[in-house]
Amino acid sequence: MSSKDFQSIIEHERVLTSPEELVTYSYDATENRCIPKAVFRPINEEEVRKIINFSRDNEIPLTPRGAGTSLSGCAVPSEGSFVIDFGLMRGIKEIDTENSFVTVEPGVVYESLNSNLVESNLFFPPDPGSGNVCTIGGMVSTNASGIRAVKYGTTRDYVQRLRVVLASGEAVTLGNLAPKSSAGYDLVGFFVGSEGTLGIITEITLKIIKRPIYFAVASLSFDSMVKAAKAVGEIISSGLDPSVLEIIDDKTLRVIKMYQDIEVGGNGVLLVEMDGFSKEDVWNRLDTALEICDLSGASGSNVARTSEEREALWRARKAALPSLARYKPTLILEDVTVPLSRLSEMLGEITKISDKHGIEIATFGHAGDGNLHPTLLVDRKSPVEMEQTKKVMEEIFRAALSLGGTLSGEHGIGLSKREFMKLEHKNSLDLMKKLKNVFDPKNLMNPGKVL
Amino acid sequence: MSSKDFQSIIEHERVLTSPEELVTYSYDATENRCIPKAVFRPINEEEVRKIINFSRDNEIPLTPRGAGTSLSGCAVPSEGSFVIDFGLMRGIKEIDTENSFVTVEPGVVYESLNSNLVESNLFFPPDPGSGNVCTIGGMVSTNASGIRAVKYGTTRDYVQRLRVVLASGEAVTLGNLAPKSSAGYDLVGFFVGSEGTLGIITEITLKIIKRPIYFAVASLSFDSMVKAAKAVGEIISSGLDPSVLEIIDDKTLRVIKMYQDIEVGGNGVLLVEMDGFSKEDVWNRLDTALEICDLSGASGSNVARTSEEREALWRARKAALPSLARYKPTLILEDVTVPLSRLSEMLGEITKISDKHGIEIATFGHAGDGNLHPTLLVDRKSPVEMEQTKKVMEEIFRAALSLGGTLSGEHGIGLSKREFMKLEHKNSLDLMKKLKNVFDPKNLMNPGKVL
Repeated sequence: MSSKDFQSIIEHERVLTSPEELVTYSYDATENRCIPKAVFRPINEEEVRKIINFSRDNEIPLTPRGAGTSLSGCAVPSEGSFVIDFGLMRGIKEIDTENSFVTVEPGVVYESLNSNLVESNLFFPPDPGSGNVCTIGGMVSTNASGIRAVKYGTTRDYVQRLRVVLASGEAVTLGNLAPKSSAGYDLVGFFVGSEGTLGIITEITLKIIKRPIYFAVASLSFDSMVKAAKAVGEIISSGLDPSVLEIIDDKTLRVIKMYQDIEVGGNGVLLVEMDGFSKEDVWNRLDTALEICDLSGASGSNVARTSEEREALWRARKAALPSLARYKPTLILEDVTVPLSRLSEMLGEITKISDKHGIEIATFGHAGDGNLHPTLLVDRKSPVEMEQTKKVMEEIFRAALSLGGTLSGEHGIGLSKREFMKLEHKNSLDLMKKLKNVFDPKNLMNPGKVL
Repeated sequence: MSSKDFQSIIEHERVLTSPEELVTYSYDATENRCIPKAVFRPINEEEVRKIINFSRDNEIPLTPRGAGTSLSGCAVPSEGSFVIDFGLMRGIKEIDTENSFVTVEPGVVYESLNSNLVESNLFFPPDPGSGNVCTIGGMVSTNASGIRAVKYGTTRDYVQRLRVVLASGEAVTLGNLAPKSSAGYDLVGFFVGSEGTLGIITEITLKIIKRPIYFAVASLSFDSMVKAAKAVGEIISSGLDPSVLEIIDDKTLRVIKMYQDIEVGGNGVLLVEMDGFSKEDVWNRLDTALEICDLSGASGSNVARTSEEREALWRARKAALPSLARYKPTLILEDVTVPLSRLSEMLGEITKISDKHGIEIATFGHAGDGNLHPTLLVDRKSPVEMEQTKKVMEEIFRAALSLGGTLSGEHGIGLSKREFMKLEHKNSLDLMKKLKNVFDPKNLMNPGKVL
């Protein structure tokens, strides 16, 4: 097959080549853009294999795509690449309630999966902000998580088995259905978070767990972020196991109040949720958390007694991004994560960096696992601001790493943070590059991402 | 340095070469034996680096050793190898109660680590049977676990950061101290369970968690293992989150009764423990588990109301191995793990295989995570029995794999199960071999193990 024959690799109507179609595949949720050579919409593993074989034989790069919600640029096509769009591979193949597994195709949407599990009282806990549109394939590729990671962990903790087509065109099954294993190297965990750079995932088996029944939620106001961060550390180290422990800083609060009729006080807010299977236990744990906040200097608290009140408390957190988006045309959402004991220092560093460069930064995030989203509020049309943005990001990354943290808690590296990987991983980055080369000697699997 | 000069790589008195010393390093808890060329007892990473550099330059294989309790042969020296004994690297470097981490040298003993954490009310949960002697380095190398894995997971779930000396002599730090990360490939998870075949671990940082306060324990008798296995599935899928869910089969029970004054009834026993931070919650969950057992056909139950009664119930489980060891001179303890829904079938297969080959097998294990220890009761002096043993093991492995399981739940592959890796991993075994080659191109890191 010559390189011009790519239109017949799979059924013609599922190969997109018109400029207006291709442009819709040129971006993700970052500022990066690149028009692909063509887009393939396979319906099964055999078609994925054909696309990979063609791309390898003709040295055309491949970029897999779920819903394109990446905040790191990992879904932006590589230069001259084919995109594999998993929009037609949305099958839930098996819900195994006896063993608590679900097997899906990569294009299944997170919320759709959990809707399908409601009847069985089971769920897949990692809960990214884009959960109503993002795909399971994308979540596996970025080791995505969200507000519930503080209790339930990240996607990696749930991936049990993967079916992957390698760059060689060979399909392999990684992992098995046993609850635990000590039989060789953990290839499943290695693939999770590899952002399409090692092979193309065609089937995913996830552990699923019992859905909690009771929830207790409170919102706490603090007059300083230092006090709020202190409370976060105490709640976690007390073993209270909150299912949500979110922080919202004063900048974010001020912007929320500009656009939303929401009562939130203080210079920093914590949102705490306990969940579980015993009403009493859940409320006991929330009460203890409230006492901790009180001792840490909370200036006010608001406890939700009904599901309506719970929704009301959630509104402030959910209003953060939409409000910030109204306030400034361009949001650059960062994702650094630090050890809990350094949370307060990291918040202080962000303020200093913001003041130094004159770039407004609103910070919120999953405080319970040290994951902050400092959000740069800028205008992409201002070259001055965009130039400062680069410096601000680099300084935020350096600060997080110097505090023992990581470049990304849940969004991945993609294009955006690639140049800082050496700062985080030092000489083990060379090891990652050598391992990538084993999987992908021609460097055709989402090249230019991660490493 | 010539190959004869190895005695001066590190301080002479910490290099063992006399036959009587070497023989004590020639075995582990399996039937495998091999006398090493020399044993090194380094006291820090720099010395480990020197040993690795010498071994590479002179092409001498290396086998790391913790306490030598391996049940898969991974601690038995490779032919002509140097052993690195971590017995002098037992430092607990830092207990970080704020972030709930502990940083240790590889030679620290599991129980000694947890004793040191008692004061902080924290613990490292994986709980292998050899916990009073085995080392953290050994646990990381085999992804060890034990009776509490059903609730708390395996060693891999707790390894946060590793310091490793590679075959090249270069030392690398893998991982960081952030509670979660999506920054590149998971090299930490990849090293866990690699049995010394990728590099030598010199420092380990583990997550540690709050120690539970309350425990509720019961022992249940069943007239058939099928009913007991059914109860196991129901308890797990109900989300009751037991901290222990052990099974003991009729053969094991009969042998225990021959040697111990223990009252255990029926043809199969389940031991259930709930733990937590609320007394009421713990007992509520145990009561629900008892109801489930009742509905699954339990013929009797014994609930521990005091810590003395709890110890008494534990005695039967703890008596299993010592009793079997008195009954027959040679025990071969296997470690297959299957999906929970296949537990009953796996138990049936073991009985069939035992009957077919006339080899007695007593089975007990961590039923809650599908991990069975079918224990072959033989005599190493009988060539006939040892020949049958090989066939029995192979048939047990094949049965577990055909039920969707794995060769090892917690003991590792080592020498004992290496020839069956292809059966489990099929074409992904080639991938493992290629990745091993990146780390260890001269095949000097514990060669002949795992792959």
